[in-house]
Amino acid sequence: MTSTGDRVFDWIDARADERRRAGLTRQLRPRPADSTLLDLAGNDYLGLSKDKRVSGAAAAAALRWGAGSTGSRLVTGTTELHTELEHALATFCGAQAALVFSSGFAANLGVITALSGKGSAIVTDAYIHASLIDGCRLSRADIAVVGHSDPAAAKRALETRRTEHALLVTDSVFSVDGDLAPLREFAQACQEHNAGLVVDDAHGFGVLGEGGRGAVADAGLIKEPNVVTTMTLSKALGAQGGAVLGPRRVIKHLVETARSFIFDTGLAPASAAAALTALNVLKEEPERAERVRAVAMTFATQLKAAGCQVSKPDAAVIAVRAPSPEAAVTWADECRTAGVWVGCFRPPSVPDKVSRLRITVRADLTDAEVDRALDVITRCAPPGAS
Amino acid sequence: MTSTGDRVFDWIDARADERRRAGLTRQLRPRPADSTLLDLAGNDYLGLSKDKRVSGAAAAAALRWGAGSTGSRLVTGTTELHTELEHALATFCGAQAALVFSSGFAANLGVITALSGKGSAIVTDAYIHASLIDGCRLSRADIAVVGHSDPAAAKRALETRRTEHALLVTDSVFSVDGDLAPLREFAQACQEHNAGLVVDDAHGFGVLGEGGRGAVADAGLIKEPNVVTTMTLSKALGAQGGAVLGPRRVIKHLVETARSFIFDTGLAPASAAAALTALNVLKEEPERAERVRAVAMTFATQLKAAGCQVSKPDAAVIAVRAPSPEAAVTWADECRTAGVWVGCFRPPSVPDKVSRLRITVRADLTDAEVDRALDVITRCAPPGAS
Ligand SMILES: Cc1ncc(COP(=O)(O)O)c(C=O)c1O
Ligand SMILES: Cc1ncc(COP(=O)(O)O)c(C=O)c1O
Repeated sequence: MTSTGDRVFDWIDARADERRRAGLTRQLRPRPADSTLLDLAGNDYLGLSKDKRVSGAAAAAALRWGAGSTGSRLVTGTTELHTELEHALATFCGAQAALVFSSGFAANLGVITALSGKGSAIVTDAYIHASLIDGCRLSRADIAVVGHSDPAAAKRALETRRTEHALLVTDSVFSVDGDLAPLREFAQACQEHNAGLVVDDAHGFGVLGEGGRGAVADAGLIKEPNVVTTMTLSKALGAQGGAVLGPRRVIKHLVETARSFIFDTGLAPASAAAALTALNVLKEEPERAERVRAVAMTFATQLKAAGCQVSKPDAAVIAVRAPSPEAAVTWADECRTAGVWVGCFRPPSVPDKVSRLRITVRADLTDAEVDRALDVITRCAPPGAS
Repeated sequence: MTSTGDRVFDWIDARADERRRAGLTRQLRPRPADSTLLDLAGNDYLGLSKDKRVSGAAAAAALRWGAGSTGSRLVTGTTELHTELEHALATFCGAQAALVFSSGFAANLGVITALSGKGSAIVTDAYIHASLIDGCRLSRADIAVVGHSDPAAAKRALETRRTEHALLVTDSVFSVDGDLAPLREFAQACQEHNAGLVVDDAHGFGVLGEGGRGAVADAGLIKEPNVVTTMTLSKALGAQGGAVLGPRRVIKHLVETARSFIFDTGLAPASAAAALTALNVLKEEPERAERVRAVAMTFATQLKAAGCQVSKPDAAVIAVRAPSPEAAVTWADECRTAGVWVGCFRPPSVPDKVSRLRITVRADLTDAEVDRALDVITRCAPPGAS
């Protein structure tokens, strides 16, 4: 018998060719520690990832607790640091309790699968994040996808479901266009139809609400007994990890049943300490949340004035339409050559097949940096973009 | 209309009651930094998590690179540190290429979903890890679960599949009982039937093979064009994160298509640096891998001599059967009171509904610590356990 092992993955090459032809090739671009690019592509919204207090806390925690948590949170992976972070997050946002996961992705998988299942229903906004989509796929629930930011459609879907239990799942701030979901209307629909509301506040926490308490707190929903909020420690808090905030019984239920919590190593102590310290910085310097929103508004206003097709930035994300995936790549590459790093989102990372520049702003950008970035982005705009 | 929101999650309380009645309640036990318990419950197999070189590298990386990677690996989340770690892992194990994920859980989800899909088949060992199971569930492939460590059954399932593409998915060392899969026989079945083999070497890497190169390298399979290996940075390497090792085209394919890679923030620099330094320590001190295997064998031999029902430890995990979930909890609690922390695995974390003590050993255990632990575990054994 001849070996066929070397043909098994031949189909991968065919797929790579298809992507190349469609202008959708991606590649990793390792960055050096001392990059001189102006970063408008990351999610370090409050500029805390390299804040000496935050990185110093990470360093101190690695030395004190070790480089890893060494096990599942249910075995050796829960340190007093994890518990302290959970209390601090819950208290800051006004939730009953919180639970830290190893990533925001894992938090979303865990919440959705633990709060639904076969014989229950999930209604989702059409533009939710991939991690929420994967949570829904894993859940085995009946899934109904409704139009983007359409509470009437969500309400109808909840109303006409055939199951007792149901969840409505949404991002607070959508990751691609940065627009805010109609959270109060979604909550109203859930109340009227006896459903849970799961909101992913990854891009709202630290940016929206009083002192950066997030979009769910801002909408007055954080204490609602049927509302569960997920968030990440990797964006505004500049670290790594995810968290779930909600009623105490929900958090207990996750500890006992969420597979991405139980069967996953606990968050590294350095990341937990960094997130905790970043939260303390945010408490002391609430103006960071205001600053990042103001900077976003400046970008949107100026880009629109320059003729670009810009999304309304409800938080720190500004999307600018590009005429094609290739044009988006060229635009981003030229900005980069000129010293400004912007994101470039193409299918399949966009819900509507439209390629975009994705500009994310930070609280620590200076006015001069904002001016420079705006100049570069508009100067590099391809024909048809403005 | 009256608000019904506060009833939505009432079903959670009923589930909690059921678990309580079945003796399956779980709770978090936060540990202090200076715990005096002898740790036989974590997965820090080589004793590197608190090694000053490793934790020092984590601390230095946090200060140099910041507390977080700030974005998806495809945007700002790839530092030169990530790339260096990927090269080092691939070179050490003898694979063409490697890709680092934010966790071993995410690596498993990413590999399985990216290498399968609707219209393909997956054959899995019955005892695979939860993260592999969830990858299979997400994949939409036709799933066939075959008996534990049964290559003939795996072969039959591959043979009788109705799809062109297929994967066989297995742990190398199974996480609950610590037994080694028949990797060569699995590989043979895959070769004969034109299938890919995905092996999760989470508990083999650092422990098995020459200098800890892992179970897949040890079986001579690491370079096979149809074999993909996943691993975690959170066990033998004492950090956090996961990795995939395999043919270059597979790794490129993951970069472009694995959802848990693309839509997830890159691993924190501190964790990447810790894993890289731990790998270097392992290269310099290959005797750590031998030591951990020898310690495991001592535990198994002595516990068996004391009459316990012990699994054969193929790596660093020793499972000891308990007569009931309650007896397992009491046993583990009494060990803990006597200063020895052992794991306690009950349904749903065991594949066969049998509750166990799960003892994990480390390369840095002294002979005196081993003696003390053995004394405590056998003294605390409940009636019926030995
Ligand atoms: C809306 C949203 N939710 C969840 C996540 C995942 O969080 P994490 O990167 O911490 O896994 C992201 C991005 O990474 C996101 O944009
Ligand atoms: C066999 C196996 N695979 C994967 C994982 C997940 O790895 P991680 O904890 O790094 O997410 C674990 C345990 O945590 C495991 O035991």
